[in-house]
Amino acid sequence: IVPYVARDDEDTFKILIATDIHLGYLEKDAIRGNDTFTTFDEILKCAKEKQVDFILLGGDLFHENKPSRRCLYSCISLLRKYCMGDTPILFDVLSDQAVNFSTSKFPWVNYQDENINISIPVFSVHGNHDDPTGADGLCALDILSSAGLINHFGRSQSVERIEISPVLLQKGKTKLALYGIGSIPDERLYRMFVNNQVTMLRPKEDQDLWFNLFTIHQNRSKHGATNYIPEQFLDDFLNLVVWGHEHECLIEPRRNEQQLFYVTQPGSSVATSLSPGEAAKKHIGLLRIKGRKMNMEKIPLNTVRQFFIQDLVLAEHPDLFSPDMPKVNQKVEAFCQEKVDYSGGFEAFNATRFSQRFVEQVANPKDVIHFIRQKEYKAKVEEDNVDFGQLMSQSTTEGLRVEDLVKEYFKTAEKTMQLSLLTEQGMGKAVQEFVDKEEKDAIEELIRYQLEKTQRHLQQRGVMTEEEIDQEIRSFRETKKGTAEEEDEVQEAFKRAKAHRLERDDLPDDLDLSDGSDFTMDIDEDSTPAPPPRGRGRGSRGGRGRGQTTARRGRGGFLCKI
Amino acid sequence: IVPYVARDDEDTFKILIATDIHLGYLEKDAIRGNDTFTTFDEILKCAKEKQVDFILLGGDLFHENKPSRRCLYSCISLLRKYCMGDTPILFDVLSDQAVNFSTSKFPWVNYQDENINISIPVFSVHGNHDDPTGADGLCALDILSSAGLINHFGRSQSVERIEISPVLLQKGKTKLALYGIGSIPDERLYRMFVNNQVTMLRPKEDQDLWFNLFTIHQNRSKHGATNYIPEQFLDDFLNLVVWGHEHECLIEPRRNEQQLFYVTQPGSSVATSLSPGEAAKKHIGLLRIKGRKMNMEKIPLNTVRQFFIQDLVLAEHPDLFSPDMPKVNQKVEAFCQEKVDYSGGFEAFNATRFSQRFVEQVANPKDVIHFIRQKEYKAKVEEDNVDFGQLMSQSTTEGLRVEDLVKEYFKTAEKTMQLSLLTEQGMGKAVQEFVDKEEKDAIEELIRYQLEKTQRHLQQRGVMTEEEIDQEIRSFRETKKGTAEEEDEVQEAFKRAKAHRLERDDLPDDLDLSDGSDFTMDIDEDSTPAPPPRGRGRGSRGGRGRGQTTARRGRGGFLCKI
Repeated sequence: IVPYVARDDEDTFKILIATDIHLGYLEKDAIRGNDTFTTFDEILKCAKEKQVDFILLGGDLFHENKPSRRCLYSCISLLRKYCMGDTPILFDVLSDQAVNFSTSKFPWVNYQDENINISIPVFSVHGNHDDPTGADGLCALDILSSAGLINHFGRSQSVERIEISPVLLQKGKTKLALYGIGSIPDERLYRMFVNNQVTMLRPKEDQDLWFNLFTIHQNRSKHGATNYIPEQFLDDFLNLVVWGHEHECLIEPRRNEQQLFYVTQPGSSVATSLSPGEAAKKHIGLLRIKGRKMNMEKIPLNTVRQFFIQDLVLAEHPDLFSPDMPKVNQKVEAFCQEKVDYSGGFEAFNATRFSQRFVEQVANPKDVIHFIRQKEYKAKVEEDNVDFGQLMSQSTTEGLRVEDLVKEYFKTAEKTMQLSLLTEQGMGKAVQEFVDKEEKDAIEELIRYQLEKTQRHLQQRGVMTEEEIDQEIRSFRETKKGTAEEEDEVQEAFKRAKAHRLERDDLPDDLDLSDGSDFTMDIDEDSTPAPPPRGRGRGSRGGRGRGQTTARRGRGGFLCKI
Repeated sequence: IVPYVARDDEDTFKILIATDIHLGYLEKDAIRGNDTFTTFDEILKCAKEKQVDFILLGGDLFHENKPSRRCLYSCISLLRKYCMGDTPILFDVLSDQAVNFSTSKFPWVNYQDENINISIPVFSVHGNHDDPTGADGLCALDILSSAGLINHFGRSQSVERIEISPVLLQKGKTKLALYGIGSIPDERLYRMFVNNQVTMLRPKEDQDLWFNLFTIHQNRSKHGATNYIPEQFLDDFLNLVVWGHEHECLIEPRRNEQQLFYVTQPGSSVATSLSPGEAAKKHIGLLRIKGRKMNMEKIPLNTVRQFFIQDLVLAEHPDLFSPDMPKVNQKVEAFCQEKVDYSGGFEAFNATRFSQRFVEQVANPKDVIHFIRQKEYKAKVEEDNVDFGQLMSQSTTEGLRVEDLVKEYFKTAEKTMQLSLLTEQGMGKAVQEFVDKEEKDAIEELIRYQLEKTQRHLQQRGVMTEEEIDQEIRSFRETKKGTAEEEDEVQEAFKRAKAHRLERDDLPDDLDLSDGSDFTMDIDEDSTPAPPPRGRGRGSRGGRGRGQTTARRGRGGFLCKI
């Protein structure tokens, strides 16, 4: 990769990249109530100081689907304060805006509106928190766009077919195609990719002169077989994918070696869950694009309340503690500046009393310490070769979801167990309940539930008629397609997404992204290669990186007070 | 009064006057859901066509304190559509805008904002429906003003003292002082007037060259002793009062003979209650002001669904019906194109079945017919000289409220009854409950409740100690001041409001409003004198003109379908 020394010139797009700002998160909290607004202020101020051409947001600008009056008021006021003014806009829109913004009553970019003096246009897709709902299919962003304050793009009207028509921008000689999909439930979008219902349109002329930037707000890490969007679903003509929804800041563009595009994951600008991913330093990005070169400058956010998290496993300190040591509780309490795994027979001390000492130092004293006792499962149904302990262990370390667990369960069960097991009546409902629930211990609970039910059913074998059993199996198979067939379809989708690269093999070498001669990427501030996504620190809808929940024994952390 | 021929010239303010638009009222109704937006569109379109200088709204632009997303979206879109553009604004602001709009983050009129191109400024006070609530004291209008779409004025920060600092406007030679008070609970504002806590500031220079326009959103008709704002509380230096909140359209300015100012009551642009006032034709006004002359042009609203209401008293048609006539029900049903009072022994027919015939013709088939049987009360406690029947009759015909009824009750009770009556424990709570409730039959229910309780207590006389009784009386008297003292204070407030006129007696004749030589008023379209306000057709908060509820026997009506 040839380092690209970024210069601000008439051909260079300067784009401020941010996502998951979650305005209004905890807005009623006495201490943290203003955090999201303070950070949005910092982000917009930065955009103004850096004189960016525009701001690109990856969704979840709002935390609530129906933001409070105060939240809307604050957001509008901030956008008006920072994004309006006389600074001229130096790029043009080449695409048909009536198509790009077809759902708007004012279907054109806000900076071209004669009555609104925009200095920094904001482009945003919607996230899962601020997604369109209700009969009118409006979302909170539409209130902003009706006031001319943002450009809501990547909105699909149809649930049958998504045709992404990019906003085509040109600054000097640089041509930038802005693609986006607002948040869609992961399973549905996954299915649409598999069913070839998603199409990214491309300009007919100078197709390979465009820098193709795609914004998406979905699960990136695998939270289940179909509960995420594999990067390989995305067309390989893309140059950079801005991935929203995932809260961990992994903003350094990481190359996908199959598709040869880069993916940047800016992460949220506020910690909304107590997970290690959220404890990472938060950044926004200043993306420069010139021709087909890009450069991502990491900009640390200074107003974000730092979140500290540490797991301590008492059993790993046999020299310091043992359950039968006299006054061990006081010793542990003294030791606890952070957090403790009490597994192995230790008694917990009073967490509330402990936390109170930190009221003046941290913003979330209640979360300072969480006691977690590791659960120990035994493979109780060995006679049937269904090792739930192993299943659970797999699922919790590999980031599988409840559905997968259940699927796995049935696969094993069908092979090895009496079919009567499948007649378990409450199972479907229970699975659904746990899938809907977003509790940390959902997996453990489900497994416990299954173990109990399984044992009970094993004792009651043969209660159902064969016909009833067949019926159960049929209806299960109808709702859940066979894995083999499904996998073929997925492979097809992967192939389709790569089709464009094959075409490009015929193109002149200097336009080929894969050789790195024309398309370069450079990271400021930190030259170490970006780590792979960890699958944690995500939005509060969808799975929660449960895979890590049991692997790490303790959970808890604190945010700095000021 | 010298007719003033209105001409549009460089010295003439043209102001579109409207109020109580109640955006979002019944927005989920399949038929009427769009009514408020359609009419707001008509109003704004009219303002644009008439090339007004600005729009003045008297509150309740929104029906809900927290308007829905759709409602905000529609409102913002309409304001952006009609009120933005290149038409130059031909008047200046002379007052200190930081004072006028002190609560705004952008404390200046929107049309002077460099980044927003306003062609028609909208000035509005808030109403009781869209009043500020919550810790931040924000109201729905503030969302609009943060986006630069309206100018929210008449906002008082203090509950101790209201100082109304007018927005001083000048167009050519005409000087217009715009006063306003956003909605405040009537009792509280009444009390503030009485306590001399309301002050209207005036410009120091050229004080009597200003046309003083005041916008208020309160009860105008007397719904209770202190549950309205007497016009006589308002300073007599005012020239015109725009009275919001009252839904009946009485837009022709009517002269107050004490204060010598005029009052225009535009009325709502949507019928929100089934009352005769709402059935009157809806209008907005085009107010022209030149120097100290004014002219109000009535503009009928065409999109408002016409509401028809008629009361029929069966007993008044003895020639047609009698209760014992064979098949009288069918005859009545046939007769009923409108509505019927079934008092006097008649049996009601099936209203639902009847209404279904009108599903295709009217927008509110459920309201087409309401059966009301007049209640007959007897003076049950004659032994104690408290004639509840008479009390109720007074209260319901004179528009008294529950509080007054209770006050009256205690006055009579103290004189004639054993004091033990006052010890009734549940009374205070019951009264509060009924005051808070807004049910049609609150008065009747209260009286029934009181009758029962009174009788029970008369049987249990002497249960309380004298000390306890004294305590009850003291606490009652502390919360409710004596009527005589109160009346003196009210008279004082009236005198204060007239003080300015006395001062003006020393001024040259040609500036004195009272002789009509300089200040003239002319009504277009209809030269008949405006009727006095009827005290009906009001907003849904506050009293409901209950005085009419039992006097008129029937209630109900319909709105045209299209």
